[in-house]
Amino acid sequence: MTDEPTAAPPAAGGQRRGREARRQARLQRSAASVPYIDRKTPATDLLSEETLALIEANAEVILQEIGLEFRDHPRAHELLKGAGCDIKGSRVRFPKGLARHLCKTAPSRFTQHARNSARNVEIGGTAMVFAPVYGSPFVHDLDKGRRYGTIEDFRNFVKLAYASPWLHHSGGTVCEPVDLPVNKRHYDMVYAHMRYSDKPFMGSVTHPERAKDTVAMCEILFGKDYIQSHTVCTSLINANSPMVWDHTMLGAAEAYAANNQATIITPFILAGAMSPVVIAGTLAQVLAEVMGGVAFTQLVRPGAPVVFGTFVSTLSMQSGAPTFGTPEAAHAIFGAAQLARRINLPFRTGGSLCASKRPDAQAAYESANTLMPTVLAGTNFVLHAAGWMEGGLASSYEKFVMDCDQLGAMHRFCAGVDTSENGQGLSALREVGPGGHFLGCAHTQANFEQAFYRFALHDTNSVEQWEAEGSRQMPERANALWKKMLAEYEPPPMDPATDEALKDFMAKRKASFPDSNY
Amino acid sequence: MTDEPTAAPPAAGGQRRGREARRQARLQRSAASVPYIDRKTPATDLLSEETLALIEANAEVILQEIGLEFRDHPRAHELLKGAGCDIKGSRVRFPKGLARHLCKTAPSRFTQHARNSARNVEIGGTAMVFAPVYGSPFVHDLDKGRRYGTIEDFRNFVKLAYASPWLHHSGGTVCEPVDLPVNKRHYDMVYAHMRYSDKPFMGSVTHPERAKDTVAMCEILFGKDYIQSHTVCTSLINANSPMVWDHTMLGAAEAYAANNQATIITPFILAGAMSPVVIAGTLAQVLAEVMGGVAFTQLVRPGAPVVFGTFVSTLSMQSGAPTFGTPEAAHAIFGAAQLARRINLPFRTGGSLCASKRPDAQAAYESANTLMPTVLAGTNFVLHAAGWMEGGLASSYEKFVMDCDQLGAMHRFCAGVDTSENGQGLSALREVGPGGHFLGCAHTQANFEQAFYRFALHDTNSVEQWEAEGSRQMPERANALWKKMLAEYEPPPMDPATDEALKDFMAKRKASFPDSNY
Repeated sequence: MTDEPTAAPPAAGGQRRGREARRQARLQRSAASVPYIDRKTPATDLLSEETLALIEANAEVILQEIGLEFRDHPRAHELLKGAGCDIKGSRVRFPKGLARHLCKTAPSRFTQHARNSARNVEIGGTAMVFAPVYGSPFVHDLDKGRRYGTIEDFRNFVKLAYASPWLHHSGGTVCEPVDLPVNKRHYDMVYAHMRYSDKPFMGSVTHPERAKDTVAMCEILFGKDYIQSHTVCTSLINANSPMVWDHTMLGAAEAYAANNQATIITPFILAGAMSPVVIAGTLAQVLAEVMGGVAFTQLVRPGAPVVFGTFVSTLSMQSGAPTFGTPEAAHAIFGAAQLARRINLPFRTGGSLCASKRPDAQAAYESANTLMPTVLAGTNFVLHAAGWMEGGLASSYEKFVMDCDQLGAMHRFCAGVDTSENGQGLSALREVGPGGHFLGCAHTQANFEQAFYRFALHDTNSVEQWEAEGSRQMPERANALWKKMLAEYEPPPMDPATDEALKDFMAKRKASFPDSNY
Repeated sequence: MTDEPTAAPPAAGGQRRGREARRQARLQRSAASVPYIDRKTPATDLLSEETLALIEANAEVILQEIGLEFRDHPRAHELLKGAGCDIKGSRVRFPKGLARHLCKTAPSRFTQHARNSARNVEIGGTAMVFAPVYGSPFVHDLDKGRRYGTIEDFRNFVKLAYASPWLHHSGGTVCEPVDLPVNKRHYDMVYAHMRYSDKPFMGSVTHPERAKDTVAMCEILFGKDYIQSHTVCTSLINANSPMVWDHTMLGAAEAYAANNQATIITPFILAGAMSPVVIAGTLAQVLAEVMGGVAFTQLVRPGAPVVFGTFVSTLSMQSGAPTFGTPEAAHAIFGAAQLARRINLPFRTGGSLCASKRPDAQAAYESANTLMPTVLAGTNFVLHAAGWMEGGLASSYEKFVMDCDQLGAMHRFCAGVDTSENGQGLSALREVGPGGHFLGCAHTQANFEQAFYRFALHDTNSVEQWEAEGSRQMPERANALWKKMLAEYEPPPMDPATDEALKDFMAKRKASFPDSNY
């Protein structure tokens, strides 16, 4: 981990110029990038043992006394009843300890396979995976401003995620392609991840049939038998908090779990609206909802890979607006990560969240104050790690590459302190001595290229130099970077027969039912 | 800690308008603000026991084999020789374990008294104190741009630090008043802290005589006997890293320690230039330099209050420019804090550091990625907590209030998760139930005003609302806030006789020797 590339690899110079030089630079970068972080730093345990035990006890109270609703899904009721739940209408009450017991068949760690096996990611344990923004209806860049996302934007974000050495995962709905019909856009989205990237990806969850379509496309890409023994898709299943699992999400979760594909069981909570206005209460609700959802996946297929997901932010209690990067949200991140470790499940939270409308200082404070707790908490799957802006309403091109630069730094942070003989540097201290200067010493010369993480977008020049170069602030520099990355993008190779088969499947399916925006 | 005020207290409305209403609002805010943070969250132990023991062993190697230089200070040599050190020229070598042993007389925690006792701060243990930017020759604001600092700017930053509920300390050289002669500006600086604030402050260290002047002014303000039993001044003593303590710093440290005043013994290091280009090596050097400096203060006066200081950032190994908010700097922050705890000394590092020339996203990423590790590390005295810009070359008015807003959030973060019956929120969960909404429930109504930290400068409105209000980014909002704070500033009361005595002392001293810029 100490030899990962910087975000700004040295330009190829001399004889090799132009396209070939760029290709070489990309190959070098790609070869050196890591498929995921294997964290050497410890996870921070912010909450005490007593606090965690209290929250766990309260989650049991919720499951036992209040119950969760599993709506419009007879198969869920059948499975949960069979497991010992008490069911009245949609309300499902779990005898004390049952939900936790049912979670035990879920693996604590699994591999999500990519079509390029060098991109396979581990999810769980000390592994940490960064995936881009998910779900924004709008996109934003400095040139064209804010507008609805299109499939072209979607492909661009997939390409940017592929090109970044710091994102391990292609993600899912990197923006909503609003120019395509709602009931068919999932084909083009899943195809974009499969074709324009070779990193692992997420599937459609907006309807159980669309989850099944995703599984069918995975069968074409990976092989029908292969996916029954290999997880190739990790998809996002959100609770309708508070305490409701609905038909759509249960159906999608069932389709994936039944086919050995991973789901991220995630209460999506703005505390004060969808949960109590206090963090200990919110965490109890999160745990209850997750245990209920995970229990369902394990009843569908014991051993199906599943992730303990959490999305908790706070509300402005004055305006009702969502707020990000708040200290209470950080508490929730740390606490939920601990609860996930205690139930032995991989943990997901996010990421680079912010409420700001532009990639300004507010966006950066909020994002950093979400990302640092996320990383220190030992999160295994970091969603919305790059590009999130405006409370998730907009995917920002500039913020995407700004956030990626921060993710690069997190790679280095998680590598921890090098304690090898070289890392101790006693030879340098002996060589230089009191009053000396380390820049020229042998140890520095041997180490300087890889010594410190090199930010691609941080300007550290003198103010005179910075002004001479146009006084560009970070978003302007980011604007140039994402354009360069898209201009230099080349798709990873794909077997033409597989490509044809995917296109053929999509064409037939699209022709089989009318367009609709529902 | 759960009931501290928000940074934006509700405006006084109705009958009470204008000056009186503002005064009331200020009094309320002041009354509710806390003198320092008493951290309820645990400190993060990032480095392992083995790594820390290795670093400690290497620090002993430095002290024993390489030695530190104590330059041009015969009294230091006399004291160190008497304690058992081996001295050749300026080089002082410590027998194994001696420096650590000499540090044992230093208190693990002390009180710095303010002239308003409600502002006394604790330094050490679980206490955390935020102090503003220190040492910038330039200042910057959006209206007048970048220029040399003046005594007017200096007073403005003292007033802003006084007005902020989130800074506990008035700091020291909040900017350099370049319009005053170098050899006399300390009088006006120390006086500004004494007169325009009633928070604790730092003294002059640029010459041993100026440290003695500071002590003399403290004697006027607090009483000659009082300061011998009460610490009223905490001052910054920087090593000339690598491994040198010079005449100026030793003389200033001696003047303060001899009079029971606190010093922050701080290696100021840009790793790769003033220390090895590796963090484990840098930390060994930091520890050796700190132990040497602390040992000297304890030989001057056993029991003198002293702080283990660390300023470590990294260099761009391409340009030689200082870089901030880097992952390696975060490692150093966490590691040094652990080393300080193990030697039982209060710990200082900082703060809201950045290299950016403007209060943009770069500044915010870098500052947040310094501040969050600083807080999680359990730092006791956070210097440069607000206003630092451009690698410390400029004190920024806008960034000052932007950073203060983040410090407010850290108050809430350090309060931890409320696990009282109210904090558990089971009544809300029972009242609302599955599919309900928490905004209107009794528990939310009872808690919403103090539920979440309210940022003064984060805009969380809809994009439509934000555009209707002028599309102002964070620095523009900050510009309005610091102007409002200065406009509403009122000095804390001071006994006129004391004020006269201070002015008299300064006038006499200034008249007693010629101006000089050395």
